[in-house]
Amino acid sequence: MTKHFRYTLQKQDGQARLGVFSTPHGDIHMPAFAPVGTQATVKTLTPAEVRHLGAELVLANTYHLYLRPGADRVQRFGGLHNFMGWDGPILTDSGGFQVFSLSNLRQVDIDGVTFKSHLDGSRHRFTPEKVMEIEAKLGADIIMCLDECSEPTDRAYNEAALQRTHIWAERCAAHQQRPHDQALFGIIQGGIFPDLRLQSAAFLARLDLPGYAIGGLSVGETKAEMYRTLDVLMPAIPADRPRYLMGVGAPDDIVEAVARGVDMFDCVLPTRIARNGAIFTRHGRVNLRNARFADDPAPLEAGCDCYTCTHFITAYVHHLIRAKEILGLRLTTLHNLRFLQRLMAELRLHIAAGSFDDFRQAFLADYLAAKQSEGRT
Amino acid sequence: MTKHFRYTLQKQDGQARLGVFSTPHGDIHMPAFAPVGTQATVKTLTPAEVRHLGAELVLANTYHLYLRPGADRVQRFGGLHNFMGWDGPILTDSGGFQVFSLSNLRQVDIDGVTFKSHLDGSRHRFTPEKVMEIEAKLGADIIMCLDECSEPTDRAYNEAALQRTHIWAERCAAHQQRPHDQALFGIIQGGIFPDLRLQSAAFLARLDLPGYAIGGLSVGETKAEMYRTLDVLMPAIPADRPRYLMGVGAPDDIVEAVARGVDMFDCVLPTRIARNGAIFTRHGRVNLRNARFADDPAPLEAGCDCYTCTHFITAYVHHLIRAKEILGLRLTTLHNLRFLQRLMAELRLHIAAGSFDDFRQAFLADYLAAKQSEGRT
Repeated sequence: MTKHFRYTLQKQDGQARLGVFSTPHGDIHMPAFAPVGTQATVKTLTPAEVRHLGAELVLANTYHLYLRPGADRVQRFGGLHNFMGWDGPILTDSGGFQVFSLSNLRQVDIDGVTFKSHLDGSRHRFTPEKVMEIEAKLGADIIMCLDECSEPTDRAYNEAALQRTHIWAERCAAHQQRPHDQALFGIIQGGIFPDLRLQSAAFLARLDLPGYAIGGLSVGETKAEMYRTLDVLMPAIPADRPRYLMGVGAPDDIVEAVARGVDMFDCVLPTRIARNGAIFTRHGRVNLRNARFADDPAPLEAGCDCYTCTHFITAYVHHLIRAKEILGLRLTTLHNLRFLQRLMAELRLHIAAGSFDDFRQAFLADYLAAKQSEGRT
Repeated sequence: MTKHFRYTLQKQDGQARLGVFSTPHGDIHMPAFAPVGTQATVKTLTPAEVRHLGAELVLANTYHLYLRPGADRVQRFGGLHNFMGWDGPILTDSGGFQVFSLSNLRQVDIDGVTFKSHLDGSRHRFTPEKVMEIEAKLGADIIMCLDECSEPTDRAYNEAALQRTHIWAERCAAHQQRPHDQALFGIIQGGIFPDLRLQSAAFLARLDLPGYAIGGLSVGETKAEMYRTLDVLMPAIPADRPRYLMGVGAPDDIVEAVARGVDMFDCVLPTRIARNGAIFTRHGRVNLRNARFADDPAPLEAGCDCYTCTHFITAYVHHLIRAKEILGLRLTTLHNLRFLQRLMAELRLHIAAGSFDDFRQAFLADYLAAKQSEGRT
């Protein structure tokens, strides 16, 4: 690790960790949630708004940016930071997940994966080396190894995919272009199978990478299976590196994962549900399209300090969503992302104070009790 | 006129007028362009952003708000200013234009117009009295008489419609609910027929209203016909009242209308073309979807002080528009509305300085020369 990519553990409370990960574009205070900017924009928001929410790290998708506008073009404009106007840390995924979830006619072999673009059907191939070159051009602070995300409960598929994922990780590490200013994270796979997960963690640990991600969760397994997998896996990940749970963003999952030692999250959930009119509250998820909000004179959530809650009443946001107005999507997006940033700040506060588990129990009691209530989506 | 609704003519240069119209929610410096917030939001923007653009007046549509969320609901939340969070002047139109352009199965008679909602097919009826009640509930600073907007070149239709428009204007004036804090403007109709226009101006002048609008232009006639109509009509409108050209927002039309004495404009054009990826520049309209912008490292328009031009390169905005990202629509909307606010400020400056006609000729030479060029939409 260079000086840029130092993980400093500041405090541990149970398994929950308070820490800081330094990058060339600034520090990331952990546990951290990264909003997703798939196409070099956190949907509906300006970079200044994302910053104002308290987010320190933004994720962008290699698969999407490789197809459009193209990695060479982004590089010519000085990399993603310049192109999208975000001067904080950026993480790019490897494109693997999207190849397996979005593209057509993918053919995977031990050397890489061939796929058709979801945009125009054109044919492309990702190998570990190709992905390292693309991610170097995009220029994020944290880059991810090419991996294969399997159906989490299919044992035979996971065994075969894991072999490819490990070979690809070795090749990514060997072919990394910019180790001085890009941190390459490995991705632990293995579905819901404890022995495969432990085997994957051990294999990747030997590569001595500056961070480790847990892939292939929150993709179809139950919450209990996800938590059980984390229980087994987390102690096997090097404690002096940040541990990143990919694609998880439900508030209860974040709290449970932090309780098990996870440091980083990203997910499209807060922004995607926002565009469907749904918001996070301490008492569960609520869909603002519901007619009962048409006459609600209160802010979306009492006590919330987000721009939406401090400027508009629920009835107005309901109207905007019903009327399909873009401002409605902006306002729910701002609320949901601020909700998660406030949650992360509270988690950090309670870890620092040694009161994490009390907070966890109180939070989950409020959040999950409401799961059964009428307003929840 | 109450003290609230005083029009002060500060300077005249040729026929172009520099003036101020005072309202209960602040002064409007004229010539002024009002962004359109059809459904109680200027599409894609927050009220703070609209204010930051330099806009002083915002228009909202009575037809849309009457159907959704409903005038009673807006009234319960303290009127449009409170509901949408805009504390500056607001103007509501009468709904007449939308009844004739958007709704189905309208039946007009001397007493009013029956129509079906474009949302759900439900049946509604607007009479002058009903519209005055709706506009009182919405609570805008400037409200408009119910009128009938005819096909501008159909003489017989215009004669019949004009009779209704005049009777309706009298009934609106008689039934106005809040003359102390709402200014009722009359709408001059008559298509492209000079005698009908003059007859309409004379009729409405006798009602001694605090402002006069010119309706039924920019709806299908040629630009030459529009300018000729203004040539005939403008001298017939009371000089001590603001003169409002409804639905006109093309930069060249604004300059030509100001040259003829128009004080106010509104139009969906800048926001609508923005959402199609088109922007105003001093050298004509440009469509950013064009592939030649994929590698353009310059701002949208050199010298522009808008948020978009001061923060992002054209290649990025092009990418956002191609990728159907909402931020792209926000950025083009901000540019176009700022373009018009800057244009209005320059018009006011040149009227004050007595150099209006020089500016007009220079502006039109640049703007219209580019009409023939490749990039224009």
